[in-house]
Amino acid sequence: MERRKFLKAAALGGAGAALATPAIAASHATTLTIVSTWPRDFPGLGLSAQRLAARITEVSNGAIQTEYFAAGERVGAFDVFDEVAAGNSQAYIGAEYYWQGKHPAYNYFTSVPFGMTTPEWNAWVKFGGGQELWDKLAGEFGLKAITCGGTGAQAGGWFNKEINSPDDLQGLKMRIPGLGGTVMSKLGVSTVSLPGGQIYENLVSGAVEATEWVGPYNDYFMKFYEAASIYYTGGMHEPGGGLGFGMNASWWSERSDFEKAVIEACCLEENANQPEEAAANNGTFLARLINDHGVTAKQFNEDVWDAFGEAAEEVFEETRDHSPLAAEVNDAYQAALRDIGAWRGAAEVEFSNQRNRILGLV
Amino acid sequence: MERRKFLKAAALGGAGAALATPAIAASHATTLTIVSTWPRDFPGLGLSAQRLAARITEVSNGAIQTEYFAAGERVGAFDVFDEVAAGNSQAYIGAEYYWQGKHPAYNYFTSVPFGMTTPEWNAWVKFGGGQELWDKLAGEFGLKAITCGGTGAQAGGWFNKEINSPDDLQGLKMRIPGLGGTVMSKLGVSTVSLPGGQIYENLVSGAVEATEWVGPYNDYFMKFYEAASIYYTGGMHEPGGGLGFGMNASWWSERSDFEKAVIEACCLEENANQPEEAAANNGTFLARLINDHGVTAKQFNEDVWDAFGEAAEEVFEETRDHSPLAAEVNDAYQAALRDIGAWRGAAEVEFSNQRNRILGLV
Repeated sequence: MERRKFLKAAALGGAGAALATPAIAASHATTLTIVSTWPRDFPGLGLSAQRLAARITEVSNGAIQTEYFAAGERVGAFDVFDEVAAGNSQAYIGAEYYWQGKHPAYNYFTSVPFGMTTPEWNAWVKFGGGQELWDKLAGEFGLKAITCGGTGAQAGGWFNKEINSPDDLQGLKMRIPGLGGTVMSKLGVSTVSLPGGQIYENLVSGAVEATEWVGPYNDYFMKFYEAASIYYTGGMHEPGGGLGFGMNASWWSERSDFEKAVIEACCLEENANQPEEAAANNGTFLARLINDHGVTAKQFNEDVWDAFGEAAEEVFEETRDHSPLAAEVNDAYQAALRDIGAWRGAAEVEFSNQRNRILGLV
Repeated sequence: MERRKFLKAAALGGAGAALATPAIAASHATTLTIVSTWPRDFPGLGLSAQRLAARITEVSNGAIQTEYFAAGERVGAFDVFDEVAAGNSQAYIGAEYYWQGKHPAYNYFTSVPFGMTTPEWNAWVKFGGGQELWDKLAGEFGLKAITCGGTGAQAGGWFNKEINSPDDLQGLKMRIPGLGGTVMSKLGVSTVSLPGGQIYENLVSGAVEATEWVGPYNDYFMKFYEAASIYYTGGMHEPGGGLGFGMNASWWSERSDFEKAVIEACCLEENANQPEEAAANNGTFLARLINDHGVTAKQFNEDVWDAFGEAAEEVFEETRDHSPLAAEVNDAYQAALRDIGAWRGAAEVEFSNQRNRILGLV
């Protein structure tokens, strides 16, 4: 409901019928073609990307004319990186860990197991040196990326049986990509990476027995509960981070200070909006999952968490071994996590625990 | 370091020497005079407000010319509300709970004891109906406010003795404003509200024995440790929320869609930046407080937290009794807290607890 109103307001703003100052004539405007990894109108991620594209035109008063292409409308979802690096389009929107095949350090600019939560990651990227490392990495491919969204801490996922010890993971077939998937593999899970649109059919057929996705608001529409009704709410694999607005580096360097300011402000506005929109809706949709669809919400026990933790340590060692840049990014990330995470643990997390205990919220 | 670079970039951007599209001629520009509650160049809060004022001019390509007046430069800090309501200036920047004397519901649009953390509050205001209630409240005074910053969860504060039971609070003289102060009063604390610039001298003279402020990054520069070296890191009184960019409602209603979009995008960009900047620095400054200034960091025990919780319940009952609008805002806030907070407890907070335990971060 709130979201619809928000989108409608943005769309109306774009029309700009009643502007007090003259809109820039379209012939003098800068064109910004955006290719996305999300399907058209995809709940959460896709709608957020479309909202951002419209917002850049609106906030620039038409000086930057954006064209938005959803996955497959101009190039395939995973072809957007090369499309923008080659300068055929100016920007992509997606999760940077999609490019881990290009360089494993890309994982740290989306989310890694036992990593930073969304507020922690934003603090590191924007005010703790993370952006400089991101620039160094993206610069190797002729790109410049800034953050433009995020999901918040992802749920542990959907299972068709309880996981009461690390042994219960042995031989389990699970859809889980990224370094979180590598952690699971080390514990005997047979992991696969499937695009969102193919998970449901594989879960129903039994080809996979478990899957993670995002959180209640996004997961609800995927109907995973029809085949796997046990929902682990806490998860180790994607605790938070951002999404990439990846631009062609030459194009970016030619932009005026004004154009850069508009793109940054709009990306950072949406970077906050997207996880907040999910946070506003997750409680409602978790209640529907439990009350209307018989879902059981659970937490992994400490034995299982400890096993995740040991496996994650191995995964980071292996990632460091790739290259000096992978080691540099990992080490900076891990140091920031400990520095920023310790204070948040002592303040916001301590408060949340005490409040939730006293109000009976857990 | 990061912050200086950020500010420098913003300042250079404002000069706009190399704009690809022509800046709006100053004679056609909209003037936006901002009066602030923060002193000039005040660390954290003041610098953030100044950055926002410059950003609006930059992102609008000069179409909105901002003039920024720090506290006392045009009107006194606590006179900005009337200044803007009367239309003499167009906007103020401050904490909305400064206006609790006008209406107690204003507390909910900054932060209340046992309330929402910053990510929760933003979810409620932007996507959960909070903004509509804020508009209703501000509308009674001819104002329209949006959020433009925040501190994150505030530390419990500085004490010259340990607080090991609620009895230790009896008769203590403490600087703590807002509803958090009312909670402390119910537990026998003699509370006072002092502006930031007067706390240190009162602490050194013994006129107060304890004080809260913000968190390590902000508190470090206040030198409270010289008189009260025990620092409680978790606190109940201001767990998160936002700051107000309060505009004259008539002026706002006359703005074009473009101008509204620029002001919103810049306020929401800064709304995220400010707590993230603090999060990036709190760990570093806590270490300095402990290692260089002999500060002892502690947590309140559960008995003390329970006493805070019982007192807070009374405070909310009394606040509701003020008026139908106070009850409406309180009830919507409390419902949103439970809805949004429960999922975050089950996901991000659970993750943070497990990660911090395994990595030894607590």
